Amino acid sequence: MNVVFVNPDHPEQPLTLTEQPDPRPGPTQIVVDVKAAGVNRADLLQRRGLYPPPPDESDILGLEIAGDVLAVGEKVHDFRIGERVFGLVAGGGYAEQCLLDHRLAHRIPDDRSYVWAAALCEIGYTANENLFHHGRLQTGESVLIHAGASGVGSAAVRMAALRDCRVLTTTSTETKQAFCRTLGAETVIPYKTRSFVEVVRAAGGVDVILDFVGAAYLSDNLKSLKQGGRLVVVGLLGGRKGELDLSLVLRKNLSITGSVLRARTLAEKIAVKGRFCAGWQEAIDNDDFRPHVFQTFPLSQAEAAHACMRDNQHHGKIVLTRDESPPSPQAPDRN
Amino acid sequence: MNVVFVNPDHPEQPLTLTEQPDPRPGPTQIVVDVKAAGVNRADLLQRRGLYPPPPDESDILGLEIAGDVLAVGEKVHDFRIGERVFGLVAGGGYAEQCLLDHRLAHRIPDDRSYVWAAALCEIGYTANENLFHHGRLQTGESVLIHAGASGVGSAAVRMAALRDCRVLTTTSTETKQAFCRTLGAETVIPYKTRSFVEVVRAAGGVDVILDFVGAAYLSDNLKSLKQGGRLVVVGLLGGRKGELDLSLVLRKNLSITGSVLRARTLAEKIAVKGRFCAGWQEAIDNDDFRPHVFQTFPLSQAEAAHACMRDNQHHGKIVLTRDESPPSPQAPDRN
Repeated sequence: MNVVFVNPDHPEQPLTLTEQPDPRPGPTQIVVDVKAAGVNRADLLQRRGLYPPPPDESDILGLEIAGDVLAVGEKVHDFRIGERVFGLVAGGGYAEQCLLDHRLAHRIPDDRSYVWAAALCEIGYTANENLFHHGRLQTGESVLIHAGASGVGSAAVRMAALRDCRVLTTTSTETKQAFCRTLGAETVIPYKTRSFVEVVRAAGGVDVILDFVGAAYLSDNLKSLKQGGRLVVVGLLGGRKGELDLSLVLRKNLSITGSVLRARTLAEKIAVKGRFCAGWQEAIDNDDFRPHVFQTFPLSQAEAAHACMRDNQHHGKIVLTRDESPPSPQAPDRN
Repeated sequence: MNVVFVNPDHPEQPLTLTEQPDPRPGPTQIVVDVKAAGVNRADLLQRRGLYPPPPDESDILGLEIAGDVLAVGEKVHDFRIGERVFGLVAGGGYAEQCLLDHRLAHRIPDDRSYVWAAALCEIGYTANENLFHHGRLQTGESVLIHAGASGVGSAAVRMAALRDCRVLTTTSTETKQAFCRTLGAETVIPYKTRSFVEVVRAAGGVDVILDFVGAAYLSDNLKSLKQGGRLVVVGLLGGRKGELDLSLVLRKNLSITGSVLRARTLAEKIAVKGRFCAGWQEAIDNDDFRPHVFQTFPLSQAEAAHACMRDNQHHGKIVLTRDESPPSPQAPDRN
């Protein structure tokens, strides 16, 4: 099969395709003929050696896939060859074939595309898990979601709005601001020209914050929380080490938590999937909740997909496809 | 009435008694003829100006009392004059009379003393709230309780042991170590001669940590937690500002939280009382859970009580009494 190759000694060299042996399924695994694979910021970090795959996992990039069942392991009885499936993987998505544990596999509804399916898991699981499970966000509460136009950010804005929360979000361009409003954000803060902490405090503070920045925002995030507020950190784009004023934590009874999906055990990921389905299956079926796909690129043009994400002008998701037609200018939401 | 006086300009001057007008109850308040008042480390901080009372609260020291109902406000129908009561107050305990909201009042069982009652609330509420509510400690999990021989520490060790948790604790002297073992601690770490983080990591880490030290222990506490672990900070004896490595928080899915009881609203304190009673009333009635009173001092000798706490040679609680007999050498547990 063809896979996307990263030169470990020169990760800045353009991504190219290379041949590798086809994967063989373990007892609980499905071999998926990959038709589409989601691109995540974690892939850019992994390429630079900053987010290594867990031990015993593929070192090929790619954390989520959609495609057809090609083969199944001996203990897999709930999926048949030829079925359309999607799901979260610990690695290996940027390839023509990928292994997926059957307990992490979802069926693709007949009226949805591979691209839709490949864009759903990482943002849906991450937003649900961190807002509602770790952050314990409740209907009627207020939430600040940083980078509301990003993949996870946009899913979080939409989910919080569907749960009747007051959503404040930060983003840069006017296009992204408009996008966040269509998702249900009440207040959109152009963080490059306005201090988010001032806007949030003027609004009375928030109960929960979902953050991708880390150390650089730590102090302002804690100042933006109400009594009993919860900060959930899921990215460290602004550094990992920051000064923490514990007296603020005690006085306001705050909590600080964070998580990454990839490092978790298979059993935990199965629980994460279960919580996502319990909370959102109906909204997905009704099309109230869906991934917004900004652009697709053929697998052979993975380098262009990474450049698009690095440029940071997109909103929503970027997806790789097996279709070798030129990159979509901007895919419709439900293609 | 007589109250214990702190000279705000010279807080280091010995505490003395002074005359003040008797308090008058608000509509929901009880006037308590104070027979015993718990001494807390927070009182030593307040005396030095480091822990000011909330606005509109008494500036007299003392956060918990036991005594007889002297008078009640017009909306108090559940307590009668002469009944024996105890409870948490936001200030004013080091006095012959003190106001107590009737929704925070407990009745003293016939077979228990005022001293027992005055020693129960602060440690019981704080340990229950932080271990089980904020820390979400579950039966079968492991917990590190710092300062296990302190008032709150000893209550936490006992509660965690009663919930069949594996309890590790830190303390200094051999007497305190033996005391912690009688409460149910499995591993007692003499922190002055051994690194707690080494002992805890060798034991496989813990699920929850209850900490009174703050900044100085922040890094070692996070290293001591298992995947999914929770650090609950309830004191800042080792400073308030420390460096936080968020990458550890994300990778291990940790949470950091903290609280102080005094800053919370009356409604929240009523909820705290409710959770304490729901969890522990039966254990209290059975005498499985009780405060350990190290020593009592007459109210007029509050200075000696503070010196005793500062010296840090006690374990369990120190209590002030209206009884003017000399300080007890060491009160029995159930006097």
